[in-house]
Amino acid sequence: MKHLDVQNRRIENGFRLTRVGITGVRKPVMVHRNGRENHLTASIDVFVDLPSSQKGSHMSRNVEIITEMIDQSVRKDVKSLEELAGSICKALLERHEYASYAEVRMGADYFLERSTASGWSTLEPFKLMARATSRRGDGLMKLVGVEVAGMTACPCAMETVTHMLEKDIPELASVRAKVPMITHNQRNITTLMIEVPEHVEVEADDLISIVEGSLSSPTYGILKREDEARVVLDAHRNPKFVEDVVRDILGKLLERYKDMPDAVHVTVRSESEESIHKHNAFAERVTTLGELRASDDR
Amino acid sequence: MKHLDVQNRRIENGFRLTRVGITGVRKPVMVHRNGRENHLTASIDVFVDLPSSQKGSHMSRNVEIITEMIDQSVRKDVKSLEELAGSICKALLERHEYASYAEVRMGADYFLERSTASGWSTLEPFKLMARATSRRGDGLMKLVGVEVAGMTACPCAMETVTHMLEKDIPELASVRAKVPMITHNQRNITTLMIEVPEHVEVEADDLISIVEGSLSSPTYGILKREDEARVVLDAHRNPKFVEDVVRDILGKLLERYKDMPDAVHVTVRSESEESIHKHNAFAERVTTLGELRASDDR
Amino acid sequence: MKHLDVQNRRIENGFRLTRVGITGVRKPVMVHRNGRENHLTASIDVFVDLPSSQKGSHMSRNVEIITEMIDQSVRKDVKSLEELAGSICKALLERHEYASYAEVRMGADYFLERSTASGWSTLEPFKLMARATSRRGDGLMKLVGVEVAGMTACPCAMETVTHMLEKDIPELASVRAKVPMITHNQRNITTLMIEVPEHVEVEADDLISIVEGSLSSPTYGILKREDEARVVLDAHRNPKFVEDVVRDILGKLLERYKDMPDAVHVTVRSESEESIHKHNAFAERVTTLGELRASDDR
Amino acid sequence: MKHLDVQNRRIENGFRLTRVGITGVRKPVMVHRNGRENHLTASIDVFVDLPSSQKGSHMSRNVEIITEMIDQSVRKDVKSLEELAGSICKALLERHEYASYAEVRMGADYFLERSTASGWSTLEPFKLMARATSRRGDGLMKLVGVEVAGMTACPCAMETVTHMLEKDIPELASVRAKVPMITHNQRNITTLMIEVPEHVEVEADDLISIVEGSLSSPTYGILKREDEARVVLDAHRNPKFVEDVVRDILGKLLERYKDMPDAVHVTVRSESEESIHKHNAFAERVTTLGELRASDDR
Repeated sequence: MKHLDVQNRRIENGFRLTRVGITGVRKPVMVHRNGRENHLTASIDVFVDLPSSQKGSHMSRNVEIITEMIDQSVRKDVKSLEELAGSICKALLERHEYASYAEVRMGADYFLERSTASGWSTLEPFKLMARATSRRGDGLMKLVGVEVAGMTACPCAMETVTHMLEKDIPELASVRAKVPMITHNQRNITTLMIEVPEHVEVEADDLISIVEGSLSSPTYGILKREDEARVVLDAHRNPKFVEDVVRDILGKLLERYKDMPDAVHVTVRSESEESIHKHNAFAERVTTLGELRASDDR
Repeated sequence: MKHLDVQNRRIENGFRLTRVGITGVRKPVMVHRNGRENHLTASIDVFVDLPSSQKGSHMSRNVEIITEMIDQSVRKDVKSLEELAGSICKALLERHEYASYAEVRMGADYFLERSTASGWSTLEPFKLMARATSRRGDGLMKLVGVEVAGMTACPCAMETVTHMLEKDIPELASVRAKVPMITHNQRNITTLMIEVPEHVEVEADDLISIVEGSLSSPTYGILKREDEARVVLDAHRNPKFVEDVVRDILGKLLERYKDMPDAVHVTVRSESEESIHKHNAFAERVTTLGELRASDDR
Repeated sequence: MKHLDVQNRRIENGFRLTRVGITGVRKPVMVHRNGRENHLTASIDVFVDLPSSQKGSHMSRNVEIITEMIDQSVRKDVKSLEELAGSICKALLERHEYASYAEVRMGADYFLERSTASGWSTLEPFKLMARATSRRGDGLMKLVGVEVAGMTACPCAMETVTHMLEKDIPELASVRAKVPMITHNQRNITTLMIEVPEHVEVEADDLISIVEGSLSSPTYGILKREDEARVVLDAHRNPKFVEDVVRDILGKLLERYKDMPDAVHVTVRSESEESIHKHNAFAERVTTLGELRASDDR
Repeated sequence: MKHLDVQNRRIENGFRLTRVGITGVRKPVMVHRNGRENHLTASIDVFVDLPSSQKGSHMSRNVEIITEMIDQSVRKDVKSLEELAGSICKALLERHEYASYAEVRMGADYFLERSTASGWSTLEPFKLMARATSRRGDGLMKLVGVEVAGMTACPCAMETVTHMLEKDIPELASVRAKVPMITHNQRNITTLMIEVPEHVEVEADDLISIVEGSLSSPTYGILKREDEARVVLDAHRNPKFVEDVVRDILGKLLERYKDMPDAVHVTVRSESEESIHKHNAFAERVTTLGELRASDDR
């Protein structure tokens, strides 16, 4: 039924399309990461561009490609969501011969073992994001992203509260240096995404550690009484605005990825689900490693 | 095209259906509440039951009824979402002559003026829920519900932290009674729903006040520096588990609605988006005023 | 720090609470189903009740129990989400010695291999739901649920369109019987949940098959041109209201589960995301097998 | 408490931040559009940038500004969400004296009266999006966006089905030209966004009409039997891929906005919630009017 290939028809007065594809595909995938098999339930979007002269894109090829690449990934020990996204992206350009651009976006829940201060082991949930893009002939760019839930404690309310209390309670002066003062704290969702050329390695687990180390405190599923107190103390000894969280991550990225090219794209986004407001506090930096390295324009 | 009334066809070996209708209808509605016009964007679901012998329900009548009742509500000064839900519910039974049961569910964002401690006025968002149900010949039950975002501070972590600090800092003893100690606090979402016979009046604004008064502290969109400190202090002087929030609301309901019949249904649900965990803490009571009043089975 | 057990404190004038626990816990779980290992990413809520005299429930025990039971499930070849929910539910009653009721809810994306008419194999996504509830001393009830996306084609619009076309195109009469007529069709989401005593076996894969067989047509991720046409033809030769979908499932349940007790609870819910409306069409039956079997009250 | 202005502190080794602000603010707003008062429930995000030397942004000013501008909008007859976003954006730059960039994003449900073929009036829901951005000294850019739900019918499945039926039913040839053939159709969500300099007028109602006119058919809340058939017939006589929807909108924009500058940004996005798949079909063009006008690079 070749003549029924409606998609392939020539049209006049068409327009180029930037992205044509499918969204919301769900598939189980498996990646080998640091010696462990990770079984993930991924959500996948794939796109190619479409020239102005062609009526439609062959959508069914997209799911075929996704399926084949996921099948291959089991045999070929795929190491990451972004590697899988890259394979799908390349196959899209091969199979959609009319396309000059392909893009793949993936997301999945992800879990890592963590330990509390008193040694309890707890499996914590994170989110992975991956994106692969390729312009025909240009090589492939891959984005590695993580979303981490943690805790922020507000430094501003802490100072105002201390000031108010000191006026009424002179004795407070004697302990103030040792006793952390109250403030509002809350759940914070921080996202870190790095986009690099295909051959540059970025480990999502490292990005998660960088984010966890930049919050007032990481959070844990299991917290026995003393561990809970420890997290609360840690957070109050390390109060942070969303601005601080983003900047601390940026600083750590510069240190950690000294050898990466200046052109590497970085997005850091931190959102605190404020306990004292019904809205959220938000800070974001969208930049390149080069900009961050320039001493006069950080 | 009466003969094309596929829905109306007789069928054999059918089954009764509990609810047949439409969901996700969005409409602007206006209610007069306490002298103010409230323009709400409502989400509406409506259902009737269907006898086993009839093939289908006449879905298009549902949207006609919703539209007519909303039009009438502008002229007739409808006072509440639940009153509007009640009118729609009655019309459903009239227009679906084969139905013996009708149900209407509505939800909308809602706003009330609040004042901070230092006198700033701020318009706070809440959610209204309404439900009307009627079995033919049985009168109408209406549910009035509110969802309120506020703040809880954990009493348990506060005690553990204090205990840990006291061991290291003996001077703490001298100020401890006056200085509230740190703990984790967070955004909390609390829902209160009361279901009463049609003629019994329940004011959603009262339900919102009851919930706000039962949290560690209400929250505000605008908080200048001292007001922010005030909210933080209030919350820490009033630490609460989700269990406490639900119980305090139950206690206030008993006081406020002394004259309501025992059969009145009450649902109270409080969920804290824990700042120290990635999951939420939850407490709920589903009951009647009668059960709450029974001294031996509260 | 036993004396810091704030939760365990005795209170006066408290109220019983119906459910106290945690929501939104995410964990990777593994179930052995029909000879296959299924790696699922589950969302978990757990609750116990709380007597009126006790201040709080021990929330941290909940995550400990979830973690232990998931660890055990790997060694003990757990066969289903509902079996795992049951184990957690029993452990909740053991560990919360003050509780008289426990409840566990789980949900996960799930995948099954399907074949298109021309033999393409495609891995289709579904949702599993599980619930276990137990009143101390009373045994355990488990709910097995599935959510299936498929296709419905409207029988009413099909008849009206045919009638309108016949008036203008007399020749239509000659082919009408053989050529399916146009109508609106759309994505439909159907949920089937069965609640049974612990020892009664219900296989979620069977429930999925029952739902797929009750829609106008199942849907597939991969559809080459002829398979796509086949699905369209199948759906139009089998037009269905949401009412029909629910009733056909009820009929199949009666046949399939002849030996199950009358007390078994059944919920069937079908929602069509109408292509001709911005809202959805909805039908639901909440019942027991006993009611369905009663010839005079189906 | 000026000295407690933690946000205002100088820091070293900081980084510039691209966006700092608040998200998820909900407010009732009123716009005068085409002689009608439109009461909308808006969701609002506001941001400014932050220099590397300043510790924090003054978040509370953001809500103050939003509140003042909404209050003023009632007195000053604000005509659109984007005009209101523009006022907030300018005030952000005034009040955050350290910022060089401000951004405001708004969204709201919106309703327009429509008529079915047989003359029934029905109030249809749409979504409005607005964005205002300003770099200090550079003037203001405003984005006007709409989201429209409608219907697409697939042209490819229609041809394949016809071809398959013709092989079996020779009589079909005689009516084929007059009788539209079956295919899959579904709910489609299409988004159109135009970004223009402040003084250029774009009417959101026009954008909605352009989208509605580019789908296989608009959809309606109320459809009596014949109107329903009419919508089904219209859609099948006008089958469209998501690619077609996007291109038809682009063509209409060129005609409608002949006088707009080449630099105007245009985003068109169409997503069909495929009735034969569990995933969606998607097409998008991100471009400028200038690119669209260039005959050799459309």
